[in-house]
Amino acid sequence: MNDCIFCKIIEKQIPSTIIYEDTVVLGILDINPANKGHVLIIVKNHYPDTITTPEDEFVSVMAATKMIAKATITALGADAYNIIINNGKASGQVIPHLHVHIVPRFPDDGLHLEWPHKKYAEGEIDEIAGKIRGELE
Amino acid sequence: MNDCIFCKIIEKQIPSTIIYEDTVVLGILDINPANKGHVLIIVKNHYPDTITTPEDEFVSVMAATKMIAKATITALGADAYNIIINNGKASGQVIPHLHVHIVPRFPDDGLHLEWPHKKYAEGEIDEIAGKIRGELE
Repeated sequence: MNDCIFCKIIEKQIPSTIIYEDTVVLGILDINPANKGHVLIIVKNHYPDTITTPEDEFVSVMAATKMIAKATITALGADAYNIIINNGKASGQVIPHLHVHIVPRFPDDGLHLEWPHKKYAEGEIDEIAGKIRGELE
Repeated sequence: MNDCIFCKIIEKQIPSTIIYEDTVVLGILDINPANKGHVLIIVKNHYPDTITTPEDEFVSVMAATKMIAKATITALGADAYNIIINNGKASGQVIPHLHVHIVPRFPDDGLHLEWPHKKYAEGEIDEIAGKIRGELE
């Protein structure tokens, strides 16, 4: 996509701090990290999100994510890590080109990525499950 | 694992609202949802996190996640979705058995999963990238 910053990074038209590259993905460090060592695994072809990425490419992205998470956690001596894919504006996705965040985590690092819990009304969980199962049939 | 709640859910010793099941994963609705329709994709074998899950099983978990995200978003008419894997206590992981969160998102749904940005000191990003690349060699 002509105006996509990640496409320009992949094409090396915009510089980035590359940690990994293969035929399907580019791994870089996020310049606005949640924690230092925050990695982005970017699919090379332009797809907006998880659903629109072909399964073979998505699976390659996730296999690379697993491998690079291990390297990142080891390199930084991190205690834990979040793997996050935001999909769509309402999810917090800033650049509509599929990318996976790997955020190294440390005790008391000041990040709060937890969420408050909502409540289902009586019977509502079964109703919603039925709708989802209906789409899977 | 004897005392793992997800192992008990997979063994059907504890009831859950199942939306999907195959040989590798179980998909259920989270009873403490971030939003209604919040799905958990749980790997059937007990592994604590992404790094300790064998690649073939992790890839199957993520392929199921992609498929079920589409069904969930379609069923609920959601605008967007987060895919989140917390790995380790310091990341917010509550149950140490690999599971993927699919959180359907809507405009102004009151969830704030964004993170504040930290800053790299001069040269620090290259130093960290070098450490990670060193682990990938």
